[in-house]
Amino acid sequence: MKTYCFTLSYDGSRYRGWQRQGNTDSTIQAKLEQILSRMLGHRVEVHGAGRTDAGVHAARQTASSRFETDLTPEEIQHYCNRYLPDDIVVLSCRVAGDRFHARLNAKGKQYRYCINDSGTPNVFRRRYVCVWPQPLDEERMRRAAALMVGTHDFRGFSSVSRRFKKSTVRTIHSIDIARTDGELQLVFHGTGFLYNMVRILTGTLVEIGQGTRDLDSIRAVFETGDRQLAGITMPPHGLILENVDYDSSVMAEIDARNPHTQEPAQ
Amino acid sequence: MKTYCFTLSYDGSRYRGWQRQGNTDSTIQAKLEQILSRMLGHRVEVHGAGRTDAGVHAARQTASSRFETDLTPEEIQHYCNRYLPDDIVVLSCRVAGDRFHARLNAKGKQYRYCINDSGTPNVFRRRYVCVWPQPLDEERMRRAAALMVGTHDFRGFSSVSRRFKKSTVRTIHSIDIARTDGELQLVFHGTGFLYNMVRILTGTLVEIGQGTRDLDSIRAVFETGDRQLAGITMPPHGLILENVDYDSSVMAEIDARNPHTQEPAQ
Repeated sequence: MKTYCFTLSYDGSRYRGWQRQGNTDSTIQAKLEQILSRMLGHRVEVHGAGRTDAGVHAARQTASSRFETDLTPEEIQHYCNRYLPDDIVVLSCRVAGDRFHARLNAKGKQYRYCINDSGTPNVFRRRYVCVWPQPLDEERMRRAAALMVGTHDFRGFSSVSRRFKKSTVRTIHSIDIARTDGELQLVFHGTGFLYNMVRILTGTLVEIGQGTRDLDSIRAVFETGDRQLAGITMPPHGLILENVDYDSSVMAEIDARNPHTQEPAQ
Repeated sequence: MKTYCFTLSYDGSRYRGWQRQGNTDSTIQAKLEQILSRMLGHRVEVHGAGRTDAGVHAARQTASSRFETDLTPEEIQHYCNRYLPDDIVVLSCRVAGDRFHARLNAKGKQYRYCINDSGTPNVFRRRYVCVWPQPLDEERMRRAAALMVGTHDFRGFSSVSRRFKKSTVRTIHSIDIARTDGELQLVFHGTGFLYNMVRILTGTLVEIGQGTRDLDSIRAVFETGDRQLAGITMPPHGLILENVDYDSSVMAEIDARNPHTQEPAQ
């Protein structure tokens, strides 16, 4: 029995998100499990680091699974890519330490939200960018983003239910806002993100950028935890999970077990 | 009666190409004509500079049309974008000189062909990039491309029928080959291109790049005009019409008639 670490990329447009839901197979997890189960001849479970929502994409999602096979990691990767639809790709498959778990070991994540506020839509990016009808003031958004960075209770900036008992405290390391090719791109790097948190933080920043919301409102959301005081939930198609971070010791162990395969470039 | 110059961008995936075909409306020209005709209350014709094939995209196609209306060019643009599907966008609409004709006045065109030979598919680019299963030797391709540049009879590098009576002599100004973001991109700049010419030139260069064809074969195709001696026709989805060139005097006249609108950035 070995533990395998998968890096995968997907266009989430057609899917109901990462996580398997009952009998439906229109999730990324279900697609991957189906193919691995067929390869092995028995059911196998796959754990993803981030449970991306319906319509959200991933440039690099990490997943882990435990099973026994005579196939090499490269053969497993090729088998998956042969049978996966063309909007899901396994970028790498490597042997990990026995106790590696993609979600439990993840120590951080990076998400990118792409907005086109230029007035000129880009047809080639339409599935991955949210079009906003007004130009956004990125300097104002940067000042607001600085107030979100750090360790806070992000309950009000999430869609978790009121009865959610676990901690809603998270740490955002950085929010970088940059204009690239006519798009305003917001990159969030943090320890973890609550349900809809990146989309609500982005919606709040967008309202600030278009001038219909004050910077002070951010403090009020932190203090009250009231979702109603935060901005809109931005649509899913502008969001992409860019990377999942692990401790360097975890990555070093994977590297040591897979001397001939390199982690794909980010 | 005024002549209008349109710049448009489209994802050609869903279409049977630019040119209207009988009763089908699944062409870009038909979509645009339909909407302008509805706006004006009578049938109107639109002339595109390049007749892109089924599945081929355009970042900047130029089109012209003559009609009378009280609407401003900006209002025409907004009307079109309101009713066009989200894979076709009018980037600009401007008043042109009375005798402006997008196809007849075009003096050059630029096409880009994108190939991913890295072994790792990019799911976000899959509709716009041709995946090639072997790494290509770009230096060898550059040497071959140099033999294609210049004024030649490109009949053998096209799908024109044997009975095609017009001249098949064209001038290619440059073929630039560069690696960008894991893709090999070939940019063709020339006076004009015959039916399938860019896709067959690319197919020939790809066979040279994978080592299954000699550079000498290019001269043989020019000398015999025999399509059978050239390479494969590459699939349409990797091809994009990037720009249409006009004489600076033509553009200066359009600029003078539209002091308040700028040509969209390339």
